Amino acid sequence: VIAQCALGVDIGGTKMLAGVVDRDGQVARREERATPQESQEVFLKELDSLVEGLLDDDVAALGFGLPSTIDQRAGRTVGSVHIPLADFDFRDRMSERFRLPVAIDNDGNVTAIAEWKLGAGRGASHIVALTLGTGIGGGLILDGKPYRGSIGAGAELGHIVLDYDGVPCGGACTGRGHFEALAAGSAADGAAEQRFGSGATSRQLVEAARAGDEGAAEDLAEIGRRLGAGIASFVNIFNPELVILGGGFAHAEDLILDSARETLALEALPPGRDLVRIVRAEFGREAGMIGAALVAFEAFDAGAS
Amino acid sequence: VIAQCALGVDIGGTKMLAGVVDRDGQVARREERATPQESQEVFLKELDSLVEGLLDDDVAALGFGLPSTIDQRAGRTVGSVHIPLADFDFRDRMSERFRLPVAIDNDGNVTAIAEWKLGAGRGASHIVALTLGTGIGGGLILDGKPYRGSIGAGAELGHIVLDYDGVPCGGACTGRGHFEALAAGSAADGAAEQRFGSGATSRQLVEAARAGDEGAAEDLAEIGRRLGAGIASFVNIFNPELVILGGGFAHAEDLILDSARETLALEALPPGRDLVRIVRAEFGREAGMIGAALVAFEAFDAGAS
Repeated sequence: VIAQCALGVDIGGTKMLAGVVDRDGQVARREERATPQESQEVFLKELDSLVEGLLDDDVAALGFGLPSTIDQRAGRTVGSVHIPLADFDFRDRMSERFRLPVAIDNDGNVTAIAEWKLGAGRGASHIVALTLGTGIGGGLILDGKPYRGSIGAGAELGHIVLDYDGVPCGGACTGRGHFEALAAGSAADGAAEQRFGSGATSRQLVEAARAGDEGAAEDLAEIGRRLGAGIASFVNIFNPELVILGGGFAHAEDLILDSARETLALEALPPGRDLVRIVRAEFGREAGMIGAALVAFEAFDAGAS
Repeated sequence: VIAQCALGVDIGGTKMLAGVVDRDGQVARREERATPQESQEVFLKELDSLVEGLLDDDVAALGFGLPSTIDQRAGRTVGSVHIPLADFDFRDRMSERFRLPVAIDNDGNVTAIAEWKLGAGRGASHIVALTLGTGIGGGLILDGKPYRGSIGAGAELGHIVLDYDGVPCGGACTGRGHFEALAAGSAADGAAEQRFGSGATSRQLVEAARAGDEGAAEDLAEIGRRLGAGIASFVNIFNPELVILGGGFAHAEDLILDSARETLALEALPPGRDLVRIVRAEFGREAGMIGAALVAFEAFDAGAS
């Protein structure tokens, strides 16, 4: 039995994007809804309704990309950022509700899997994928397969310590100076507010820099240097073939990538430094949804074999 | 054909330790020599003589642990710290010279392999091994096998950026604020000199702290906090079962480990934070030699199959 299609759902803090996807990543139909924040009950009700609206007989499995740390042994979300879902047996709940094979994975992991199987990482076996949004999501392909850690909680690449004893990471994270607080959208928001006043955003900072504002350009170059230092850490650890950059903040690449590469050249060791290629993700906002469908196919194939 | 013994050689900046080792890690005989620094020619002559002195018919393969970044495709040392050996076809040179299967690997990797197969990591599949000496060597066991990166240059765990734009890493490394410069012996040497004057060493700092010197104890607690921050980065990335600490500076664990654990608890995310165990390496100074023999068996078995 070969599954024709899987339903992939990318669940973020503001929206849930679901699609019926075939093995080649073609999306037959899709739907987007706002992510309810009131409670777990309301969240699940809306998610059930989203899934039901897209299900038909072609859909053989369900996959969910979650902004959560996950215990894959139990199929459980341990902690979640931005959605009301902690310590919840997500996989069992969904497979009981829909009577289909269900896979769950971290949003960074599913994005990496989409790029590896169908996007910028095709053919590569050692990939560090970074999603630069407000924070930084990460996913790893190592020795030709996704790396998830001993229980599936791995690849929280946004939470390496980049600036020891630095600024608080924020949210539920009690750390300081973490990569995601220094080298992506929230850092640019902070720089924008310092430069243009309360309420200014990273988008304004980027627009100002493109319009010739040298201060704004330097703010973004500094964020690029921090990005380069974090990438260098991953190059030294993993000796990857590719570092794939995606996410909304990666659109500022014209303003951050030159300084990132300069810092990378200083902080990373040869030969890994000279071999690695930094490339843009091929999938845009549908990366997580398509990756979620790909892990659903994995679950289907594991059950069928 | 099953190899009875392999010759493992651990090559460091000051000494070369060689031993004839069986598959259970038992050492039949061993020899140690100083590492010549004058030139590659002198270095190789001394190494050849060390190997020849230990070879007999029981030895079926040779393994070398090197303080070098390595290109495993070519069996080449790309760059070396503390030994005169850059851009050298080490594997071919040795297999031509001795007519035996030869394996080479980074010193951090062979140490990790020794602990995984025969030491503190037996039975575990996800291990971060750190050797705390003057600097920090690292090795990874991921999903049940050694991780070496796309060409074998991986797992330079001492060279993650821990303090962005911090102190120069030193030696051949052009980076700043790297883990190994902040959280091991060289950092303790620096603190000792600041506290006790030029020429003071980490050993003096440790002795003073054990004798009740509160300032020295605080210096070491601070180094422990940095160690904890680096370990937290690896816990967030890898979700490992074990972090194994070895090397000479790990003997100061009574003075650094409490503060390391406190920082780890703040910087690492659940559930990985709560599951990981930090343990002492079981092998002492022979870890690299035994690990080098184990990779020699790998090369032998690959050739025999």
